[in-house]
Amino acid sequence: MKWSTNLIPFSPCIDRFCTGGYRPPISLKERIELAAQIDGLNGVELHYPSLFRETDVPRVKDYLKDNGLDCSVVSPALSGEAKWQNGSLTNPDERIRADAIGLIKEAMDIAKELGANRINLWMGQDGYDYPLQVDHGRIWELLVEGVNECARHNPQVKICLESKLKEPRTHSALGSIAKVLLLANTVGLPNVGANLDTGHAFMAYENPAEWAVILHKHNRLFHLHLNDNYGDWDWDMVVGTVHFAEFLELLFWLRQIGYDGWYSLDQFPTREDPRKALELSIRNVKAMDQVAQGLNAKEVLAAVRRHDAISTIDQIRQSLFATYK
Amino acid sequence: MKWSTNLIPFSPCIDRFCTGGYRPPISLKERIELAAQIDGLNGVELHYPSLFRETDVPRVKDYLKDNGLDCSVVSPALSGEAKWQNGSLTNPDERIRADAIGLIKEAMDIAKELGANRINLWMGQDGYDYPLQVDHGRIWELLVEGVNECARHNPQVKICLESKLKEPRTHSALGSIAKVLLLANTVGLPNVGANLDTGHAFMAYENPAEWAVILHKHNRLFHLHLNDNYGDWDWDMVVGTVHFAEFLELLFWLRQIGYDGWYSLDQFPTREDPRKALELSIRNVKAMDQVAQGLNAKEVLAAVRRHDAISTIDQIRQSLFATYK
Amino acid sequence: MKWSTNLIPFSPCIDRFCTGGYRPPISLKERIELAAQIDGLNGVELHYPSLFRETDVPRVKDYLKDNGLDCSVVSPALSGEAKWQNGSLTNPDERIRADAIGLIKEAMDIAKELGANRINLWMGQDGYDYPLQVDHGRIWELLVEGVNECARHNPQVKICLESKLKEPRTHSALGSIAKVLLLANTVGLPNVGANLDTGHAFMAYENPAEWAVILHKHNRLFHLHLNDNYGDWDWDMVVGTVHFAEFLELLFWLRQIGYDGWYSLDQFPTREDPRKALELSIRNVKAMDQVAQGLNAKEVLAAVRRHDAISTIDQIRQSLFATYK
Amino acid sequence: MKWSTNLIPFSPCIDRFCTGGYRPPISLKERIELAAQIDGLNGVELHYPSLFRETDVPRVKDYLKDNGLDCSVVSPALSGEAKWQNGSLTNPDERIRADAIGLIKEAMDIAKELGANRINLWMGQDGYDYPLQVDHGRIWELLVEGVNECARHNPQVKICLESKLKEPRTHSALGSIAKVLLLANTVGLPNVGANLDTGHAFMAYENPAEWAVILHKHNRLFHLHLNDNYGDWDWDMVVGTVHFAEFLELLFWLRQIGYDGWYSLDQFPTREDPRKALELSIRNVKAMDQVAQGLNAKEVLAAVRRHDAISTIDQIRQSLFATYK
Repeated sequence: MKWSTNLIPFSPCIDRFCTGGYRPPISLKERIELAAQIDGLNGVELHYPSLFRETDVPRVKDYLKDNGLDCSVVSPALSGEAKWQNGSLTNPDERIRADAIGLIKEAMDIAKELGANRINLWMGQDGYDYPLQVDHGRIWELLVEGVNECARHNPQVKICLESKLKEPRTHSALGSIAKVLLLANTVGLPNVGANLDTGHAFMAYENPAEWAVILHKHNRLFHLHLNDNYGDWDWDMVVGTVHFAEFLELLFWLRQIGYDGWYSLDQFPTREDPRKALELSIRNVKAMDQVAQGLNAKEVLAAVRRHDAISTIDQIRQSLFATYK
Repeated sequence: MKWSTNLIPFSPCIDRFCTGGYRPPISLKERIELAAQIDGLNGVELHYPSLFRETDVPRVKDYLKDNGLDCSVVSPALSGEAKWQNGSLTNPDERIRADAIGLIKEAMDIAKELGANRINLWMGQDGYDYPLQVDHGRIWELLVEGVNECARHNPQVKICLESKLKEPRTHSALGSIAKVLLLANTVGLPNVGANLDTGHAFMAYENPAEWAVILHKHNRLFHLHLNDNYGDWDWDMVVGTVHFAEFLELLFWLRQIGYDGWYSLDQFPTREDPRKALELSIRNVKAMDQVAQGLNAKEVLAAVRRHDAISTIDQIRQSLFATYK
Repeated sequence: MKWSTNLIPFSPCIDRFCTGGYRPPISLKERIELAAQIDGLNGVELHYPSLFRETDVPRVKDYLKDNGLDCSVVSPALSGEAKWQNGSLTNPDERIRADAIGLIKEAMDIAKELGANRINLWMGQDGYDYPLQVDHGRIWELLVEGVNECARHNPQVKICLESKLKEPRTHSALGSIAKVLLLANTVGLPNVGANLDTGHAFMAYENPAEWAVILHKHNRLFHLHLNDNYGDWDWDMVVGTVHFAEFLELLFWLRQIGYDGWYSLDQFPTREDPRKALELSIRNVKAMDQVAQGLNAKEVLAAVRRHDAISTIDQIRQSLFATYK
Repeated sequence: MKWSTNLIPFSPCIDRFCTGGYRPPISLKERIELAAQIDGLNGVELHYPSLFRETDVPRVKDYLKDNGLDCSVVSPALSGEAKWQNGSLTNPDERIRADAIGLIKEAMDIAKELGANRINLWMGQDGYDYPLQVDHGRIWELLVEGVNECARHNPQVKICLESKLKEPRTHSALGSIAKVLLLANTVGLPNVGANLDTGHAFMAYENPAEWAVILHKHNRLFHLHLNDNYGDWDWDMVVGTVHFAEFLELLFWLRQIGYDGWYSLDQFPTREDPRKALELSIRNVKAMDQVAQGLNAKEVLAAVRRHDAISTIDQIRQSLFATYK
């Protein structure tokens, strides 16, 4: 397992109430240094250009090298400025759409230069809030065209489309993993796929394990975002603190399909120590992975082939509570 | 607008608590006669073989003719018997899968004979309840293969795939409209499309208007099921009693894309008089359609092209509350 | 821990689709005999008069004695007949309200005779479906008056009010545990309290642990219903198959407050073997209880006093994954 | 109807993604001047001390007078600083609890001086995020004690407790209106009641009309917050853009119970012009109120007394679509 995180946990974690943030801001260098202290971390996701400019790339390379970290993914920052408030690739303003495409291409170039070779495309501001606010057909066209143009920019760089049902918009343009796959298939290029975010999956009542497998069948499982919530909202919590069985199932199937990409954390620890909050996620996942590996895969596969819940519930219980029998 | 309903409202509407039902059972003939009394109704959806057998078709034709009703759709009944408890096309038992395919083909034949030329394929028992219960990859394969085989049986009969997030399974195999379209595109045949059920859309936080438009762009908007709920569950209520703006938006866009299919009701009136409950839906939709048509389409289209919610909110207000200014 | 279950799992588990049920019906005697085979079970909840008549009480006593089971609770059956479709204590028809009160009093008498000394009052049909359907003030008055009259019938028999957000009504009269406690406090009699149903708590986004503690503070935690779901609906699943941390928290606090009542199962195993489905719940809870007891209570209490999530997450991890460190 | 709003709509409306805000910040004076331009507005809610200091009170009075506005409510700002991140009245730190009580008392004094005579007590940071994070019994005690002490400070000033299910915490201490009423009844003082926030009600699946009536029966309906959402989250949208029937029901019952308090807006217009977004809410509510008054109250009351949904659905339809028959 290659572990990564984005650097949001080391930000002030501002929300709409505590607009001054829950902790003071620190520099990119400091963030990377803190991340490097996380036991087991191998890489970081980098937002561009909110964290650094194109001319900073050599400096960023040094930070990473000095701290023994890789860049897992570059994330074009298309949600954090008022400019993008009506969307990026689907913005009603042609010039802003062009800016979005330009920024995505830059992010792809940087992803190549930093050796990540993949970008995470989350279009948080694309969508709508009110009924009868947008032309849904036009939005879909712009998604297909925009992703197509970006993907053709460099076929060696993977575009990981990240679904999210809502927030900041009441309705995101790419609400579900199903819709991401629909879009990727419609675009039809091999470097367009998905970043499966477990929290976003729960929020859309999509089982991460199911979608990891279906994405894999279409060769479009490119990246993983791990975090937890109560199924109702993108709380970005420590992994495994709420959901357990679904993570176990995900980990079981990731082994079955031979997933060898990043396990990347996307958390929002407002009141918790960021380093500890991330470290606990890694520990929880590693422990759950051991529970999953403690299962007899042959027996589980036999049971799921006959849809036998009683059998798998019992197998999970025996693996999990091995010492409590 | 061509109006239709299925005949469930005239059943006892049994639920898991009131297993004796909320009203006495009546015959198919009586159901059709009651449906015929609904002001404005043009057709009925018929479940096969739960409502009638293949040999009854001539008799069913007579009932319809006598009551001045068309058959809008034939629905293979794949959820109402213990036999299907682990699914139809995705059942782990090969023989049951074969039975399901056989039944669907029969329904297609009957749909042709009754002049409906379309079946509604809702696979209510396909899916799972517990984490780690099924092999998700296998389920997806079986869906693609099964729908493919059925669609090839008669390219003249349309297969309307109906999504539903959950119930009776905690997780249905075809949970979202996005997934239905993904499946239809994967199968890739022109007679495979969607039955957009508004209540199921709300339950999956999918905006019916948006999906009507996206399905239409793929030539896969085949049928409509209308009913209402609180966004949380498939309550199958009188249309327009909870949602209003979303129906207005749907009706606006259906006119824009030139939808000329059925407006078919799928309600579950336990404690209400079935005829009145259906009639009120038709009246509400017709009134909402007039409100939608009272909008200045040119101005609405201009507003949605710039994502201008304030403008469309005001336009809706002026059209709806025309007499209350 | 005294373990109990109601006998619904041994019914056909009819739902609104599979109206013929998922298994054949059996007699009360057979149900009790099957329940007696569940490893660790001590008692059963008995619905009256749907399972037996008043004159059957001696016979029921024999069944219980023969099978070594106690009666944990008697449940007046106020939801299963069309007669109650508009409610029991809040029915608009005065005569039906009187019947409901009569039935509840009978159930109390029987609960005394069977040694349970408590009834579970779940009013599934009380509430409404549509906006503007009922007079909310009147409903509240009838709840207060009705519960008051029943409670005065026999102060030695406890009335365990069971909340449920919805189903079969879209809005139940007693939707939340908070409302149950509000009602119990308003009635103000010592034998009126709550049956805390974990699944119903999850569905209302009420944390069972929190409400166990708050109910206990008001001396109104009378009974427990255990089952699991995804937080969205009352799926009545095997305990611990979805939620884990919340059950752990509940079990921790039940020990702290010295709860000595029943741990009673309320499941709806449609496709699963009933005995196994119940047994797995007991095993899961017992294992989770051991994990909870494996926590250092002093350290946990110190951590919760400073709201220290990082500490308790880590303590849970260490207790749960003791063998996976 | 006396109309009011808080001044959040004229803030930058920062959220956790767009941390620079969707519009530039302006002064309190400018905010009040903008509010004064809203057609039909009579008053403003004022957050203290985030908007002004105690010594600014004379100046604030002038602003209000100059703009022809009253102060409807003073809101102690207990959620907007990192200091309160673990709560106000329920903070684990005794000194911060004392600060919270001090601040609430100051807000009460100012509310008296400004003629509002009521404060809105929303404790956004009180609650928890993770399972097993807090001592639920202690939280409840602190709520009872804290509110009690504040209420005794000045019995002439009403404390309007505002429930909210979640956000910023995953679980608020006062999640539901039911719990607010439970708390108010437990404290038992006449100046402790509720601010019924429609959006928060929807989010907790609590029908605002029902709770307006139940609160009124306990003499604890002190204040109203109006805004809209999809039932899933506190989107703080223009009123009547999503929900319609529930607002109609609320307006009907507010007339029946003779509510004469404020109709106060609590919106969060990120991308919309604030003045227009608020004005449209007032217009929508006034129009819906006319529809509600267009109902024949006698007939509606007769229908709700027999739980006759068909009748009230039809009455609403006829009143709403008067011109579309």
